Amino acid sequence: MTKKKTSKTSALHEQPGISEPDALNTDALHNIKKRRQNNPTAEALIEGILAQDISALSRAITLIESTNPAHSEKASTVIKGCLPHANNSIRIGITGVPGVGKSTFIETFGKHLIDEGKQIAVLAVDPSSGLSKGSILGDKTRMEDLVKTENAFIRPSPSGDSLGGVARKTRETIILCEAAGYDTIIIETVGVGQSEIAVHSMVDFFLLLKLAGAGDELQGIKRGIIEMADAIVINKADGENVKAAKAAKLEFNRALHLYPEKASGWSPKTAICSALKNEGISEIYDMILDYLDTVKANNFFEHNRNEQNTFWLKQTIEEQLKSRFYNQPQLEDELQKQIQLIKDGETTPFAAADYLLSLHSL
Amino acid sequence: MTKKKTSKTSALHEQPGISEPDALNTDALHNIKKRRQNNPTAEALIEGILAQDISALSRAITLIESTNPAHSEKASTVIKGCLPHANNSIRIGITGVPGVGKSTFIETFGKHLIDEGKQIAVLAVDPSSGLSKGSILGDKTRMEDLVKTENAFIRPSPSGDSLGGVARKTRETIILCEAAGYDTIIIETVGVGQSEIAVHSMVDFFLLLKLAGAGDELQGIKRGIIEMADAIVINKADGENVKAAKAAKLEFNRALHLYPEKASGWSPKTAICSALKNEGISEIYDMILDYLDTVKANNFFEHNRNEQNTFWLKQTIEEQLKSRFYNQPQLEDELQKQIQLIKDGETTPFAAADYLLSLHSL
Repeated sequence: MTKKKTSKTSALHEQPGISEPDALNTDALHNIKKRRQNNPTAEALIEGILAQDISALSRAITLIESTNPAHSEKASTVIKGCLPHANNSIRIGITGVPGVGKSTFIETFGKHLIDEGKQIAVLAVDPSSGLSKGSILGDKTRMEDLVKTENAFIRPSPSGDSLGGVARKTRETIILCEAAGYDTIIIETVGVGQSEIAVHSMVDFFLLLKLAGAGDELQGIKRGIIEMADAIVINKADGENVKAAKAAKLEFNRALHLYPEKASGWSPKTAICSALKNEGISEIYDMILDYLDTVKANNFFEHNRNEQNTFWLKQTIEEQLKSRFYNQPQLEDELQKQIQLIKDGETTPFAAADYLLSLHSL
Repeated sequence: MTKKKTSKTSALHEQPGISEPDALNTDALHNIKKRRQNNPTAEALIEGILAQDISALSRAITLIESTNPAHSEKASTVIKGCLPHANNSIRIGITGVPGVGKSTFIETFGKHLIDEGKQIAVLAVDPSSGLSKGSILGDKTRMEDLVKTENAFIRPSPSGDSLGGVARKTRETIILCEAAGYDTIIIETVGVGQSEIAVHSMVDFFLLLKLAGAGDELQGIKRGIIEMADAIVINKADGENVKAAKAAKLEFNRALHLYPEKASGWSPKTAICSALKNEGISEIYDMILDYLDTVKANNFFEHNRNEQNTFWLKQTIEEQLKSRFYNQPQLEDELQKQIQLIKDGETTPFAAADYLLSLHSL
């Protein structure tokens, strides 16, 4: 019995150690298995995506996210088939530290967009979610209303062992979502680590959510993020918080003026809102529309997307070159030996690099 | 006659097109040539450097700076021989935009150090100087007094086609200078481009020189540089400028407090000085001594040097990997083709990267 159980890896079976009820309907089981095994071709998936079939879209994204090498060729075919129908959305990045109210903001903001006739896809980039089992968007119940809306598609962050891998999966998912007719892509990320840079490099508009805090608003903030922001929005500006939120808005406004002009020609704006009470949300969307008017008129919009493509091309090449080099057998040992020799004053970093590079033809 | 001239490539001969005087003393010419051809061995150079022979030091640095591949093995031997005698100096980086008075500051600061019994070497990192023929330290006459001092060694920025190459030559020159007994190494760089990051990664203390300007002191400044600075010094604080310099000092002080605490445990300081009138210079040196007390006590000094070594090791490896890849024959053509295909919506940056990486085994 135990042996039999371990061979049952389907999710339809219970966890090992938990006894299986006898009353399973074997006919139903057979049907479910059969449907699951029904493995649509790449062409069928493309057709489904273009026909806005959510289930085809979801399956194709699962292919992209798969680490099974056998899936990657099929995923490439699907992406290629979707490419001519992509690139026609607005991509909005949203970041902020945990607790700032990102989920509530996206829920309220998303519903506003849908009321405006938009079809939205909500994705996430969170390289840590593979470990923490989905720290953002993982719990869809936090977006209860949005998840029930027909015109919204929500997908948690793919897991992955490198930010580059997670970012690639998300960028490819954007293509599929656009081909499926979603005209507004919202990409959420957490305000820690390098993931903002990745998200900033895949969106048209980058929005930083903040809370009004006690004391100096700028203390300890990662300046890199402020520099990337097209808008800083103080959330939870309701009740007694309104006054502090307005003060924080002023301070951020002053800070933004210290930064050099952006290549986009857009001066980053500040705003306050209460996502919970749906206050200030439509003003934020209007601001984004203003931004789009500006950058489409001065051609930054297209220029930026081309630059982003070149960035990801070179980024992928360079990440791969490094990964190929450092993953060579014995390389780590040799590297540590050289680092020790440098510490001991027996070699220089440059001579050590020359030596390590000479070890392998790669 | 014309034919004969073109074969004379020695600097002892005049430029082609300018007729050569008949009165050349052929004996003297022979002697000069003989001395020039006297090619000391690596061992002789090491011995000379350790004996504080300036001419041996200069010749060894010329070997390091040479682009002749035949010289690089000899240079490596000299560096290796000097290594056990290196690493025993204080390395100070000085940056600031052109016009801020770097040369005057280094002259006055350097003389103060020599009065304190120090032996100083002044180097520079300026990747642009290869083109502009030495925009910094190139004209030693700007440091008239220092250049005449026995305990000061001044060497302009090496030329090079990449910052990495220039930085490597400077780092290797530091080793030689330290082995020659210079206990304080000053490395100058200009406040533009990536060269500050390179210099910051090879010094113990990083000093940013500024001028008091009209209006907002922070406007347009590259924040990355402020973040790296251990001290911001407002120069030219004399006469009518003193008031503005004090105001600028205050403003920078306020700005510095917005930054997160440094790994060194040192809170960056601000100061004013007039290098021209030798005012405030000894206070700056005292500040650097304070810094050294702090970071030697908390072990950041050694930790930082180890980190810098690992940085240069990895930096060199990664630069080489990229350079090997992008310098492959035809790669640039293929890259441009892929970028066009991405623009045309025929491929993704990731598929293009995979393709380019598959083209070559390297």
